[in-house]
Parts: sequence; structure tokens; C-alpha cells
Amino acid sequence: MATLDWKTLEKEDAGSKHDLQSALDSLRYNQDGLIPAIAQQHDTGEVLMMAWMNKLSIEETLKTGHVCYWSRSRQTYWRKGESSGHQQNLVSMATDCDGDTLLLKVNQKGPACHTNRRNCFYNEITREELTISANPVK
Amino acid sequence: MATLDWKTLEKEDAGSKHDLQSALDSLRYNQDGLIPAIAQQHDTGEVLMMAWMNKLSIEETLKTGHVCYWSRSRQTYWRKGESSGHQQNLVSMATDCDGDTLLLKVNQKGPACHTNRRNCFYNEITREELTISANPVK
Repeated sequence: MATLDWKTLEKEDAGSKHDLQSALDSLRYNQDGLIPAIAQQHDTGEVLMMAWMNKLSIEETLKTGHVCYWSRSRQTYWRKGESSGHQQNLVSMATDCDGDTLLLKVNQKGPACHTNRRNCFYNEITREELTISANPVK
Repeated sequence: MATLDWKTLEKEDAGSKHDLQSALDSLRYNQDGLIPAIAQQHDTGEVLMMAWMNKLSIEETLKTGHVCYWSRSRQTYWRKGESSGHQQNLVSMATDCDGDTLLLKVNQKGPACHTNRRNCFYNEITREELTISANPVK
């Protein structure tokens, strides 16, 4: 299985294809075997959250269509929505120019954040202060 | 300067405020003093790129309104657009529920990606293969 070189891929035209296993093996995981994954609501563009995946959780997500992360705090697979019901259905997945970040376009059921807010980015930072910008969904 | 506890902040109502230095000191930087930052085009919702910031680059970004990252490969400040002219002007900044990721809403001048593509996420991954999904902007 050939390893992909991200510098070479940069020069390829749209439509150029490579096999999945080479791509997943070539992602630039960190020392813990993890890669950051941004979850974005596919139709509104809202950035919902950022979490981490390993190779097996990526494969499971592609296979089932339900997003599975790796929980760094619990050190186990985190099938989003398994206990809350707030599942993320995968619409598309992409990696960036140097293969070290994933962007997941998803269809989020219910609030994405464990605080019951629609997304996790509710702590707004300005040059003066931090302000809580959203309340949990009722 | 009080340290913020993210678990306590979760329970605060929208509009609740904390001082900037406490917030920046309480962000959960990794062992290299870095925090991932997602850059999103403020009006279209397009996710442009993901890069890393340290406390000083966050402070500079808030002060100047021009996004400054920390380049892990070059181990120095990376004032986006300094050489390319493809600057990112900050519209808003937020951190997530556990203070370990930033979301920057920006106004991107020109292409965000160093390959001259509009954004960095042009390597689409499906359960069959990886496909280049965009060409550089002419």
C-alpha cells in the first residue's frame, strides 16, 4: 500500500483519486494516534464542536455513517449521541492540505454540546473580556 | 487573577462576563503551549483552515484584528498573509465548553490555503477513496 505524500497531492487536479487505506494510513496523527476533527452542520455551516479521532474511529464513521470520536478524557470510543441521542450523521469528510485535520460535515440531531447548547463555541472572547453568548436549548 | 473553571462557566447564563486575562490564562493549551484554532469565513460559514495559536498570538490577534498563528513547522509566529497578502481579519473569537479549542470568524482576503485553493479541506474522503475536490484559484 503506497503512502500518500501530501506535497505531491497538492499539485494534483480535482478528480484525482487514491485508495482509502493509503489515505487513512497517511493522515498525520499525533503521538497518541489522534487527529483533530471539526464537526460542521452541513446545511447551515454552523461549526458545532471539535473532537479527536483515531484511524479505527474514522473507519467506523465511514462505515456506519454515524460519527465516532475517540474520547481523550475517557480513553475510549465515543459514539456521539449513544447516551444522549444527539447523534451526528456523516454527510461528508475531508482532510486538509497537509493531512493533519479532518472536517466532518454532519447532520446533528439535537444540541451538539453536552451542556445542551446548540454548539460548543459559546464563550465569546473580545479584547476586553469573555462573555457567555448562548443558553442551553430548552 | 482568578482562574476560570470551565465546568462552572457551563452553568452561567448568557451575558455573564469574565476578565480577558483570566480567560486566556485558563485556556487548556497542550504541552507545547498551543491551542487549535479553526478559521471560518464569517459570512459564508466556509471552514477555511485549522492552525495553532499560543497565548501571545491570541493577544496579538485581539489587539491588531489580524490573525496571528504559531507555526509548528517553523516554530515561530505566523502572521497570516504577511508574505502572501492573504490576510485574515478577525470578526469574532470564541472558545468551546472545555476551553481547549478556538473558533475564529474571519474575513479572508484571497485564498486561505497555501496551495492557492480557497480553503484547505480539498481532500475528500469517502468509504471508497480519497478524491481531490478543488483546484487552485486562478
